[in-house]
Amino acid sequence: MSAGRFVLGVDSGGSGLRVALAPADTGRAAFTTVCAEPVRTGADGIDAGHLLEQVLPAAGGLLVKAGPGAVVAAAAVGAAGMATLGDRLRAELPKAFADSLGVRRVALAADAVTAYAGALGGRPGAVVAGGTGMIALGTDLTAWRRADGWGHLLGDSGGGAWIGRAGLDAAMRAHDGRRGGSPALLARLEAVLGPATGLPGLLYPRTDRPALLASFAPEVGACAGGDEVAARILREAAAHIAEAAAAVCPGPTGSGTDGCEIALTGGLFRMGEPLLGPLRGELARQVPHARVVPAEGDPLHGALEIARSLAGPGLRLPHHPTLLFVPGVT
Amino acid sequence: MSAGRFVLGVDSGGSGLRVALAPADTGRAAFTTVCAEPVRTGADGIDAGHLLEQVLPAAGGLLVKAGPGAVVAAAAVGAAGMATLGDRLRAELPKAFADSLGVRRVALAADAVTAYAGALGGRPGAVVAGGTGMIALGTDLTAWRRADGWGHLLGDSGGGAWIGRAGLDAAMRAHDGRRGGSPALLARLEAVLGPATGLPGLLYPRTDRPALLASFAPEVGACAGGDEVAARILREAAAHIAEAAAAVCPGPTGSGTDGCEIALTGGLFRMGEPLLGPLRGELARQVPHARVVPAEGDPLHGALEIARSLAGPGLRLPHHPTLLFVPGVT
Repeated sequence: MSAGRFVLGVDSGGSGLRVALAPADTGRAAFTTVCAEPVRTGADGIDAGHLLEQVLPAAGGLLVKAGPGAVVAAAAVGAAGMATLGDRLRAELPKAFADSLGVRRVALAADAVTAYAGALGGRPGAVVAGGTGMIALGTDLTAWRRADGWGHLLGDSGGGAWIGRAGLDAAMRAHDGRRGGSPALLARLEAVLGPATGLPGLLYPRTDRPALLASFAPEVGACAGGDEVAARILREAAAHIAEAAAAVCPGPTGSGTDGCEIALTGGLFRMGEPLLGPLRGELARQVPHARVVPAEGDPLHGALEIARSLAGPGLRLPHHPTLLFVPGVT
Repeated sequence: MSAGRFVLGVDSGGSGLRVALAPADTGRAAFTTVCAEPVRTGADGIDAGHLLEQVLPAAGGLLVKAGPGAVVAAAAVGAAGMATLGDRLRAELPKAFADSLGVRRVALAADAVTAYAGALGGRPGAVVAGGTGMIALGTDLTAWRRADGWGHLLGDSGGGAWIGRAGLDAAMRAHDGRRGGSPALLARLEAVLGPATGLPGLLYPRTDRPALLASFAPEVGACAGGDEVAARILREAAAHIAEAAAAVCPGPTGSGTDGCEIALTGGLFRMGEPLLGPLRGELARQVPHARVVPAEGDPLHGALEIARSLAGPGLRLPHHPTLLFVPGVT
């Protein structure tokens, strides 16, 4: 085995595109680069050409840094929207990686799967990924289970946009004199977004409405200490997040193991104790056989971890035609 | 007073534009016409030119039907969006009506105000207008009070889009195996909208998302008889509708009157008993001094009623710079 044997990981999300190279035996990123632009999504899904024209030169640059004789033994690409919008990527990326980088072991993963691999590696368990949205993904290493992640109008219950929207609803209730209103949240609304009556005109013309809603979630967190309405919103969010975790967490095996691991990842949980306190309580009630563990790493680390498994010991996480696609393996 | 003295009423909404002519002494529509197109809304609000180029010929046609010597003594125009998007209408319509129809007594009203006038005439009380959205408007004849009507992301609590969204959320929960799911609503979702996993791809690209959400509300109503989740959604909707009514209903006068009248108007209430049953209960609890009365007429009738008041006995409903604007009266 050569000292120049590496694995390549890619993490493509709404806010950017990151590429990393790691020694194939450790999977710990040695070289990382951030590309200029988030990958575009067009009418036929994620724009494979736009991803490749950024990733291939970036990978080439990282290989130069790695030194003479460095080769890519395996690669994994995680992308937001991979499950539903990844057809072109699955069709075009394997050949492009083979032609340009000489790598034939490739995996294409949904961002929730790279989040999973980054957090728990190849162990069974569940990951809750919370940001503007909210999705839970779990596996017993035989199959994947997914809960929520349906977007701000159909679910994402307990995520950032959900919390922000509930907070703004409570603020507008206070403005109108309706039951369930929070004068504290109304004061925060007017401080950060202007007059309450102007909010519809601010929100509805935007294309990134969920992001605007989610931007109010930290205000709900900040009010929760002294405002019962805000505290109740976070208790309900915690219950919804635990509901998603409970739906995907592998059951108790009854064979003397110490239960399922759950990792919480994503910016939502930076809200801290106002959300995490109620969430620990809900998880203990709804998924008593599980224990919350810290995530080992982020989705880019997860992509490297998947590539490392492909290059060496073999992938323990289950293959899936859209969640975790490995060409040549069915 | 001439037998040829008439009032003109206009009702402009998202689904169409209607014009009616009524004898000035009764206000009961004698001639009605429906124009070809809903009035456009542009960057600077409701398109006044688009409204006038349809309303003026329609009014002329109705005057011909009314017979030789018919004159318009007063006119009222109710329009969706009038309060926030009606600047151009308020600036241009009075002169255009004076020049083309010879009418100088004109009112420009929000659609909630014409709904109010149609339902309760010039009496104090409250109107709840429910369709895709939900708004409550009340007056003691001194000032207007408004509650909700903030759109599908900030409120409209208990309206059609709210009920439909809650129903779809429960359907997706059943799909995922999350707590709070309804297999009955999931079955209805798949029957009317196709596979659950395809719903995000169906909903999010559309510009009329609230309408699609509201289209599922009747399914929730149809399931409520046998499905506890659907029944709970309608109980919560009823509570929210009553909260809005309670916020705007004039208080008990303590002077021996028999309390405030509340009228329920709009397509939402065609859902019937599954919603109306819980709503009567909630109104009795939250607004005990009020009684629910049938609406006398629709918003077009309300526009005629406002015009009739302007032409004759005088307007009892309070003037307001955007809700009920009467040029020359401040």
